[in-house]
Order: sequence, then structure tokens, then C-alpha cells
Amino acid sequence: MPSSNARGYAKGRARRREILLAALHAFAEQGFRATSMREIAEMVGLSQAGLLHHFSSKEELLEEVLRLRDEEQTAFNERFGQERGLDAVRYLIDLVDLNARQVGLVRLYTVLAGESVSPGHPAQEYFLDRYATVRERVATRLRNARDGGEIRADADLDAAAAAILAVMDGLQIQWLLDPKTVDLRRVFGEFLETYLRGLAT
Amino acid sequence: MPSSNARGYAKGRARRREILLAALHAFAEQGFRATSMREIAEMVGLSQAGLLHHFSSKEELLEEVLRLRDEEQTAFNERFGQERGLDAVRYLIDLVDLNARQVGLVRLYTVLAGESVSPGHPAQEYFLDRYATVRERVATRLRNARDGGEIRADADLDAAAAAILAVMDGLQIQWLLDPKTVDLRRVFGEFLETYLRGLAT
Repeated sequence: MPSSNARGYAKGRARRREILLAALHAFAEQGFRATSMREIAEMVGLSQAGLLHHFSSKEELLEEVLRLRDEEQTAFNERFGQERGLDAVRYLIDLVDLNARQVGLVRLYTVLAGESVSPGHPAQEYFLDRYATVRERVATRLRNARDGGEIRADADLDAAAAAILAVMDGLQIQWLLDPKTVDLRRVFGEFLETYLRGLAT
Repeated sequence: MPSSNARGYAKGRARRREILLAALHAFAEQGFRATSMREIAEMVGLSQAGLLHHFSSKEELLEEVLRLRDEEQTAFNERFGQERGLDAVRYLIDLVDLNARQVGLVRLYTVLAGESVSPGHPAQEYFLDRYATVRERVATRLRNARDGGEIRADADLDAAAAAILAVMDGLQIQWLLDPKTVDLRRVFGEFLETYLRGLAT
């Protein structure tokens, strides 16, 4: 039988997770700035003081929500890291496929990324780092493909990595607005094959 | 000498424009949902009742702000309409060039497009229509280029139009966050030439 301390700890963790999921939902539905701590507290049946016991500020909640989102992609990133060259770049189709089955997380990401370009937004640092990291990761795979002769020597692969990322973000907006017209996975897959063909010739 | 009616009308118009620019600024800095009518009234030195005399709701302000933004692109759209085939598609580089000199409008667009994917957002209809219209406009130019033999016959040109639009939106996010690393015009120009090469072969 677990000690009462262990039970208290497990209960606290479950409570934190419940609050995080409520915050994730609220941020995705209204954005970070328009969501109040009072609303999040109400969603989980806590007083504001009760909520502050678990998370000291809305900014801390945002940080944890973004971390939670990243964890959903950990398994993908591990696989992505093992491939080389164009096959690694094509793994991005799997990521888009994963995203197409996680509409709530994609909405969260789209709303927060849009908000983050406004001055002083607390998620600015997160998105700055994230784009720099993912651009570099994709550019490394493209350089690897170039060294293997799959991509022509004079292509600007930092620009190519930025463009590939940009298509993913931009298509998510169109897909969220109009899922019947824009098939996220198919349009991205078509795009990537065409673009890689353009980089090869 | 203008009549006092004409003077009153001109003054009212100038006032409306001043309010619209304040709202545009506030929506770009904080998003639509987190901006209150009280804040906009304060920005232009009006009471809330005074503001409501000019615009009956925040939704009406949003609609007019989006219309103002569209007007900035009218001249571009007219030129775009006159070209045919791939040259018309390459005109998008001029649009990106124009955007790169209008950081405030691009920020407004990026913040509102991101927000608009959340349920019940008042700009949802605007962005739905806008993406459908611009996708169709670009796809028509691409089909024209295909009929002229510049693009291979089996390419999915609706998907291609969605992808080209998506790159523009996605690059704006990366550029707004990190203008020193991501050169909006250069990256888009490189992308478009590579992608059109992929569509041609």
C-alpha cells in the first residue's frame, strides 16, 4: 500500500496534468493573452489561490503547455535523427501525418505561433529557438543529401529548410480553416516531392 | 469655403481613420481577443461612448481594419491580374517584396490569421474566403502555365497553389521572429524558382 505521502504526490501530479490540459485547451481556443488565470481555475473547479498553488503564473503554465506539446513529438524526433539524406527529409511527411491526427495540438501551435510575433510575447523565445533548431536539423539532412549527390551543389539549403518549415506552418492554417478543401498530408507530400525534384535538377 | 457640414464630414472621416489605425496597431500587438474597446478608446482620447459613436462594435472595427489592409494590396492585385502563366506566378515575389516593407501590416495579418483558426473567431470567414480566393487565383495562373507547356501535365495545381500560399505565410512568421536570419524576399524568391523547376520537369 502506498504511503499517504506517495498518494498525495500522485494526486498532486494528476491535478497538475488536469490544469495543464485545461490551459492547453483555453490557449488553443482563445490564445494566451485573452485567457485569464480565473478562467483556467474555473475550468478545473479551483479558486485562483488554489490554481496559484500549482502554477505561480500564466507564463509558467504557457511554458509547461509548450513542453507538453513537445513531448508528443519526442518519439518522432528520435526516429528523424536516425535517418540520413533525403529519406530523413521525407520523414517530415510522417510528422505532418501525426499532426493531421492531433488537431487540438496543431490549433494550439498555430494560435501561439501567430501571437508570438507580437512584441513582448512570452512564447517569442520558445518559437525563435524552435525555428532555429528545426531549420538547422532539416538543413543538415539536406546538406547530407547534397553530399550524397541527391541535391545540386549550388542550392541554398538554409533557405530551403526555412521554406519547408514554412509550408508546414502555412498549410496548417489553411487546413484548420478548411479541412475539407485542404488535405494536410496529401498537399504536403505532393509539395515535398515536387520541391525535392526542383532541388535535384 | 466648405460648408460646416462638409467640414464636419471630413473631420468625422479623419477621426474614423485615426481610430482604425489605433485598432490596427492594437490588434497587431495583442491580437483581436485580448484588445478591449476601452483600450482603443484610450489610444485616441475618446470615451467608450465616443468610440461607439464611430464604430458600433469591436467586430465592426476588425472588419474595417481587414478592409484597410486589403486596400494596401489593391494596386498589386490589379497588376497580378494582367499577367499570364509563370510570369504571373513570379509576381508573387513582388508581393513578398511589398510585404517586407510593411512589417506592421504583416504582423497584423500573422496574428489575426493565427487567431482565426480558433472556434468562433470573427475573422474566420474573412480568412476562409481569402485563402479560397487567392488559391484559385494562383491555381488559374499555374493551369495557364501548364497549358502553355511550362508545367508538366500531371501536376496537382490546386495543391501547388495551397503550398505556395503556405510558404508566404510560414516565412512571415519566421521573418517577424528573426529578421536577421530569415530574409523574407530572398528565401521566397529562391523557393519559388526551385519549386517551379520541380513543377516543370
